[in-house]
Amino acid sequence: MKQSTSPIKLIAFDADDTLWRCQDYFDAAQIEFERLLSRYIDIGNTRVAERLLAVERANIALFGYGVKGMALSMIEAAIEMTDARITASDLHRIVTIAKEMLTHPVELLPGIREAVQAIADVHDVVLITKGDLFHQEAKIAASGMAKQFRRIEIVSEKDEATYARLLEQFGIGAHELLMIGNSLRSDILPVLALGGWGVYMPYHTTWQHEAGEECPADHARLACASTPADLPAAVAELVRRAG
Amino acid sequence: MKQSTSPIKLIAFDADDTLWRCQDYFDAAQIEFERLLSRYIDIGNTRVAERLLAVERANIALFGYGVKGMALSMIEAAIEMTDARITASDLHRIVTIAKEMLTHPVELLPGIREAVQAIADVHDVVLITKGDLFHQEAKIAASGMAKQFRRIEIVSEKDEATYARLLEQFGIGAHELLMIGNSLRSDILPVLALGGWGVYMPYHTTWQHEAGEECPADHARLACASTPADLPAAVAELVRRAG
Repeated sequence: MKQSTSPIKLIAFDADDTLWRCQDYFDAAQIEFERLLSRYIDIGNTRVAERLLAVERANIALFGYGVKGMALSMIEAAIEMTDARITASDLHRIVTIAKEMLTHPVELLPGIREAVQAIADVHDVVLITKGDLFHQEAKIAASGMAKQFRRIEIVSEKDEATYARLLEQFGIGAHELLMIGNSLRSDILPVLALGGWGVYMPYHTTWQHEAGEECPADHARLACASTPADLPAAVAELVRRAG
Repeated sequence: MKQSTSPIKLIAFDADDTLWRCQDYFDAAQIEFERLLSRYIDIGNTRVAERLLAVERANIALFGYGVKGMALSMIEAAIEMTDARITASDLHRIVTIAKEMLTHPVELLPGIREAVQAIADVHDVVLITKGDLFHQEAKIAASGMAKQFRRIEIVSEKDEATYARLLEQFGIGAHELLMIGNSLRSDILPVLALGGWGVYMPYHTTWQHEAGEECPADHARLACASTPADLPAAVAELVRRAG
């Protein structure tokens, strides 16, 4: 463990849309899905996105998060929305979309490698990411960043119970953990609720239209960052507050 | 840590086909898949199982192990084998097969709960299982056995590198680990190769036809068990040998 004098013992990073692009690919897959369905149904008069989301929500307790579950839900939704008129070849295109997502090169956010390194020079850093074990491991390997993290934790859900379990494994208290991520729901709020610290870095390309994702800067244990380059200073500010 | 005088510090259990039935469901899914294809092709003259396996092998590096990957490979193989003549409704049946597998009640092997408890009364026990994170967690929760294990590790591959990483996390040497499982390739051989101990318990219903899966009892750090009831004695025997 580094810098035993710091009141914050461990800096944890989220991965998808914090280290590398992710949601963009899901958005592109959805556009491709709609294009596919437009051969069968009047896209303008069918709430395709809404109905796909309903199928995905119904399946999430079975499939969890990730590309494979997305593909199975898309296949199911496509069959349902076309009253089973969709051809096998068009359904195969959905499998191909999933494969393309799973083989897509990892695109690091600009400046993130340097930001993680700067923070890792001072603190112990770990990675805590949610989703499909196999795909997450592949992305971590492809990112070339695995060695920067003291531990890598891939979890199925990021809620208070999960963070509490990880804190026990790490052997630290919640007030000694700082989590950096792009999701208030998964990365920031559960850690704050446990008594930990958070740096919220919204993923602008995806979330710029969501006013509700503004930085809730009124929390004493929370800081915000606009870009990866802002992360080291945001961490240093919270460490100062904690001291 | 329990029984610090034991030369073997940690007993690890595999899960699928060691604690509960698993392969049987994959076998049943394959029979259902062949039945589905029999509406389109001459099953007798098509090496369906062989061609499905070829698709699964080609996809394993992308999909990993588990039910969702199996379903996507089945969909792909069905489309390929029927020259895309298969209907959307029949393809949807494959999604349903996957859902049925994911919701199937966990069926513990007879006597395994008592065997794990008997071993856990004496040693620290952990669970090391391979496959889909989400589904494995669901099965562990449904088994009611989570509390018997000091740690639960869900990994994407069970090879020497994985076991070496886990040993580092556990803070023990390979000679202090004993792994119990039904797979020579995944559970036994990598642990023996690292210098650890193994108890091989073949899953008879599945493997009885494979002569090669006989107990390779000529290894000093390996014991075999025919049923879960044999496990505590097999572990005790290896602990005696290690002492």
